[in-house]
Amino acid sequence: MIIAEITMTPLGKGVSVSRYVKTALEKIKESGLNYKLTPMSTVVEARTLDDIFSVVKKAEEAMLELGAERVVIDIKIDHRIDKDATMDSKIRAVEM
Amino acid sequence: MIIAEITMTPLGKGVSVSRYVKTALEKIKESGLNYKLTPMSTVVEARTLDDIFSVVKKAEEAMLELGAERVVIDIKIDHRIDKDATMDSKIRAVEM
Amino acid sequence: MIIAEITMTPLGKGVSVSRYVKTALEKIKESGLNYKLTPMSTVVEARTLDDIFSVVKKAEEAMLELGAERVVIDIKIDHRIDKDATMDSKIRAVEM
Amino acid sequence: MIIAEITMTPLGKGVSVSRYVKTALEKIKESGLNYKLTPMSTVVEARTLDDIFSVVKKAEEAMLELGAERVVIDIKIDHRIDKDATMDSKIRAVEM
Repeated sequence: MIIAEITMTPLGKGVSVSRYVKTALEKIKESGLNYKLTPMSTVVEARTLDDIFSVVKKAEEAMLELGAERVVIDIKIDHRIDKDATMDSKIRAVEM
Repeated sequence: MIIAEITMTPLGKGVSVSRYVKTALEKIKESGLNYKLTPMSTVVEARTLDDIFSVVKKAEEAMLELGAERVVIDIKIDHRIDKDATMDSKIRAVEM
Repeated sequence: MIIAEITMTPLGKGVSVSRYVKTALEKIKESGLNYKLTPMSTVVEARTLDDIFSVVKKAEEAMLELGAERVVIDIKIDHRIDKDATMDSKIRAVEM
Repeated sequence: MIIAEITMTPLGKGVSVSRYVKTALEKIKESGLNYKLTPMSTVVEARTLDDIFSVVKKAEEAMLELGAERVVIDIKIDHRIDKDATMDSKIRAVEM
């Protein structure tokens, strides 16, 4: 699996932006991808880069529809092809 | 325009990775997108998120073809719809 | 509290770098800061930027001592002064 | 040298934040560190992590003094000890 961490921040919509983050998170849930919410981001697990980019596009569209005029998006992707890593296997590897 | 900063790093391919960065940069050049090389990343200017994601996919494929077994990709996107920002206008706005 | 997400990646030490991540995580634990391990990073909660930077320096030193010759460090900080956010309050705000 | 890329974004201060970015950039200039402004960040060159963290703290203080109530800071650091990289040598390595 490809593991990706996604952060989306609307500018100019006040100091608290949780209403916008919620609508983006809704799109991640609808995608059916396995995900984990962290205090700074949402981490997803996907078979392809296209699956990740597709959900990012939908999440951003939802923020724009809600009224955001500027969105800063951070995507960090960890793609390894030597073995099949998952979100859980990555955490286990450093906890042990 | 949407401005995006792209960084791609292969793991396990030695301390110097410029051979890999060059092959990724080649794909960015081939895309025809306006770009700027910085010491830490390549910044591109695009009309759509798809244009950005398309070049990221091609650049990563090129790194994998060159032998990378694990690639860490960072994409930071600044998308504003209230006015038409460019790479140059963003720099001018803070330099003046 | 200031919430910070920290990622540290050694280059040139093979495709699997969990031995290095573990030694960095050890320093975060020793700091006494409240932390959460995610599949892509470690998130910490601190009173000051100095507390965050201090643990990053110790974690990087530990990676260099273990033999890393090049380390890429990502730090994303969310500092709000209008109210006292914590790692848990940030997650609750978007889950509800 | 250690190369670091710094981005600072105030939330809740409108869609255009160049006034805040300018005041942060002023602190980077005052630090005496060699720097390059890019469309998405400022890249600096420093001898130690402390030099980088010191200028980040001053830049954030300046943003808070200007009225920011929430600041998101991104720092990406490339620290290699096998040879003496600079901002210029990093660009030359991939352009050639």
